[in-house]
Amino acid sequence: MKDISRNLTMLTDFYELTMANGYFLTEMKDKTVYFDAFYRSNPDKGGYAIAAGLEQIVQYIKDLTFSDEDIAYLRSKNIFSENFLDYLKDFRFSGDIWAIPEGTVVFPGEPLLTVKANAIEAQFIETYVLLMLNHQSLIATKASRIVRAASGRTVSEFGSRRAHGADAAILGARAAYIGGVNGTACVIADQVYGVPATGTMAHSWVQMFDTEYQAFETYCRIYPNSVTLLVDTYNVLKSGVPNAIKAFDTVLKPLGITKCAIRIDSGDIAYLSKKARKMLDDAGWTECKIVASNSLDEHIITSLISQGAQVDVFGVGESLITSRSAPVFGGVYKLVAVENNSTVEPKIKLSENVAKVTTPHFKRVYRLYSNESGMAEADLICVYDETVQDGADASIELFDPEAVWKRKTLTDFTARELQVPIFKNGELVYVLPRIEQIRENCKYHLSSMWDSVLRFYEPHTYYVDLSQKLWEIKRDLINKNRNNTL
Amino acid sequence: MKDISRNLTMLTDFYELTMANGYFLTEMKDKTVYFDAFYRSNPDKGGYAIAAGLEQIVQYIKDLTFSDEDIAYLRSKNIFSENFLDYLKDFRFSGDIWAIPEGTVVFPGEPLLTVKANAIEAQFIETYVLLMLNHQSLIATKASRIVRAASGRTVSEFGSRRAHGADAAILGARAAYIGGVNGTACVIADQVYGVPATGTMAHSWVQMFDTEYQAFETYCRIYPNSVTLLVDTYNVLKSGVPNAIKAFDTVLKPLGITKCAIRIDSGDIAYLSKKARKMLDDAGWTECKIVASNSLDEHIITSLISQGAQVDVFGVGESLITSRSAPVFGGVYKLVAVENNSTVEPKIKLSENVAKVTTPHFKRVYRLYSNESGMAEADLICVYDETVQDGADASIELFDPEAVWKRKTLTDFTARELQVPIFKNGELVYVLPRIEQIRENCKYHLSSMWDSVLRFYEPHTYYVDLSQKLWEIKRDLINKNRNNTL
Repeated sequence: MKDISRNLTMLTDFYELTMANGYFLTEMKDKTVYFDAFYRSNPDKGGYAIAAGLEQIVQYIKDLTFSDEDIAYLRSKNIFSENFLDYLKDFRFSGDIWAIPEGTVVFPGEPLLTVKANAIEAQFIETYVLLMLNHQSLIATKASRIVRAASGRTVSEFGSRRAHGADAAILGARAAYIGGVNGTACVIADQVYGVPATGTMAHSWVQMFDTEYQAFETYCRIYPNSVTLLVDTYNVLKSGVPNAIKAFDTVLKPLGITKCAIRIDSGDIAYLSKKARKMLDDAGWTECKIVASNSLDEHIITSLISQGAQVDVFGVGESLITSRSAPVFGGVYKLVAVENNSTVEPKIKLSENVAKVTTPHFKRVYRLYSNESGMAEADLICVYDETVQDGADASIELFDPEAVWKRKTLTDFTARELQVPIFKNGELVYVLPRIEQIRENCKYHLSSMWDSVLRFYEPHTYYVDLSQKLWEIKRDLINKNRNNTL
Repeated sequence: MKDISRNLTMLTDFYELTMANGYFLTEMKDKTVYFDAFYRSNPDKGGYAIAAGLEQIVQYIKDLTFSDEDIAYLRSKNIFSENFLDYLKDFRFSGDIWAIPEGTVVFPGEPLLTVKANAIEAQFIETYVLLMLNHQSLIATKASRIVRAASGRTVSEFGSRRAHGADAAILGARAAYIGGVNGTACVIADQVYGVPATGTMAHSWVQMFDTEYQAFETYCRIYPNSVTLLVDTYNVLKSGVPNAIKAFDTVLKPLGITKCAIRIDSGDIAYLSKKARKMLDDAGWTECKIVASNSLDEHIITSLISQGAQVDVFGVGESLITSRSAPVFGGVYKLVAVENNSTVEPKIKLSENVAKVTTPHFKRVYRLYSNESGMAEADLICVYDETVQDGADASIELFDPEAVWKRKTLTDFTARELQVPIFKNGELVYVLPRIEQIRENCKYHLSSMWDSVLRFYEPHTYYVDLSQKLWEIKRDLINKNRNNTL
């Protein structure tokens, strides 16, 4: 497939470099540290998110190198030591990374990605790791919501022109496909990432001809097997649909073609689609599909369906590609542990806001599935050296880490670890799945979640609990740092 | 400067290609057509926008070529004619483009960019032109609002990690700089586009050391001339600020350094900054600046200032880089005219929604400046062959095209055309300004707008009127198409 990658080593926040130089000068560079990437709340007040962006993070980590040009640029800033700039010449990522695979349903507070590396390497990759995780998880999550709203109808991603730059268009289409849309209008997303691209016509096609009918007839003659006529340039019901039917009758009928489509891009979609459906059916074009577009999102689609709109395909643009109603996925990247003499020492960041206190330590995260229903019941975050005993006789008491009196006992369950090894000593040890596999992984994970977690309004807060051991470590660290802040 | 460009010819909507193939097959490819890019409403219910993105459009147009790989990919779709694919081998943009320079204050309905080319070329570039204009105009506009709110205080762009992909981070920083921010945290935006990059430290730096004081003292020793200490890892007033003062006293004072800074990234910024200011002043660190960050936007900054917050520098992240409160700049690209036998025939697209009816024809747009005040009073959109008579004796009656009884007479004014030629017969005829010039252009244009246009709440709707001739052409076309839709 086409390669449009670039070396983006220098896409980093300036402070990653000033800190790296600082670690270098204090000899902290040989200290092994642990960072977690996680997020704090689901977009759109939803009950879940879809992890995405790992493939691009892998590419970035593999490509990490500073060119002579980069080093000359940094030297020109007059604040980096020459020894540090020398060190950057041979800089490669040599640490370990674990991550939750793309397409997985994830929840606030869980480590989506964990890095173990020396302080410089672990710190340096922060910006890009967050950038990719935040963007693609945001769009995959939004896509998942929109596809759920469409209840089995086709959803196409149409938003390139309103995306935030080229990568937002291309990787946004990729993430949307992971989240469940059926295709994209973005050609290069098909060419590079295998997201099926499709397309129809713009108003300009219709305007370019002397009459709407001529525009339609011409299009039918050129693309008899994949016709979608845009019927709202002048007037949907008085002009667009009648002209479409006339063109279908004239061009497609003699060819024995029954499959075709119209697209409505403005006006009252519920009303117009019902009227258009009747006109098409009355004319014998019962297999003609109706595509609707125009600022759709999950709520408008839900409303259209509840009004009985006759829409087969939803084309979703700006609301998906920008996640318009919630355009920020607030992933953060926090130091959680430092090794001292081979001992992993947990680290914490406090905050006035309880939810912003980090969960310390090198951790593992398990998803607990009920053996009876097969459904996911809770996630459990443990210290790295803990094991979870599962099976028919297993029993575990879960408790809300912020409200420990809320308790629930789970029995007869299977625990599956969510993170998998990605890099080991700087070597890629993960086979990147094909996009269709990622998409299937997403479907699988959604199918193992109760509807109460997935619904849009007041979703059930899925349990993401800490093990007793981890909770105690966190509590003790809070108390220690609160009382001994200087 | 570093080059991170890629050939993004294939970043287009699939329908641009199906329509192009269609134009090719109908011999419409030799027809000269005119398209306008414009937008319909200002983000955030504001009174204006800042145009940006042109430099990247120029780069794209210059680079437009289909590789053998691209053509092979298109062939695999089995819907494009071989003659068309042959034609794409030598495809170059050979038309004319006019545009309003980057950094200019612009208003809904004005042609920001106008294309005159054969139907295929003019149609094909739609997606990328809109993508660049929409994204960068969005961020430049948001930046302009945030900078205005900061009332002369420094604003830094901190949002890379929350951007929608790499281009959104890099070009977002570029657009934010055009819109008025003083710098960015994004290193590569400095390296490639000359946006000044700066940075300080993350919480991880503080956590990495055994004590906060040790972290601060170490940082001061490494960067005595550019110290900004992050003081909210544990407790701003009980720990962070006292430790910062101690580190300044220990390291900076003996060196005679009086310039330094602290950063507060959480909590009640108004309260904490005032308390911190007093502690710093009492300790003699009157030149120590206070940087505030944490989900700031123009409204929070306005509120902080009105509360007397002692903030010298605002670091703005996600709300700027995603234009969180209004993440879509709804630019569109519409056919406005077609040449027939060397006559420019205006074209229109109707809509049930009056604001969505396009303004037809090949046009020019003028900004009318009062000779008395030097301020911009109105923009006037004319047919391409009209001239506007300005000067001390000139008088023009403006009227709202959607409410023609609203009239205003302007006398003694100077008319300046807003669009400038960019490409002529496919050749670049525009000297791309340096980013500092673009930034100055933006400041100049803002300075020529009345405050009533620039304010956040209920801004005055700036006059963007049509000439009498253009208005009559539009009215006649509406009537013609309404009555004769089949």
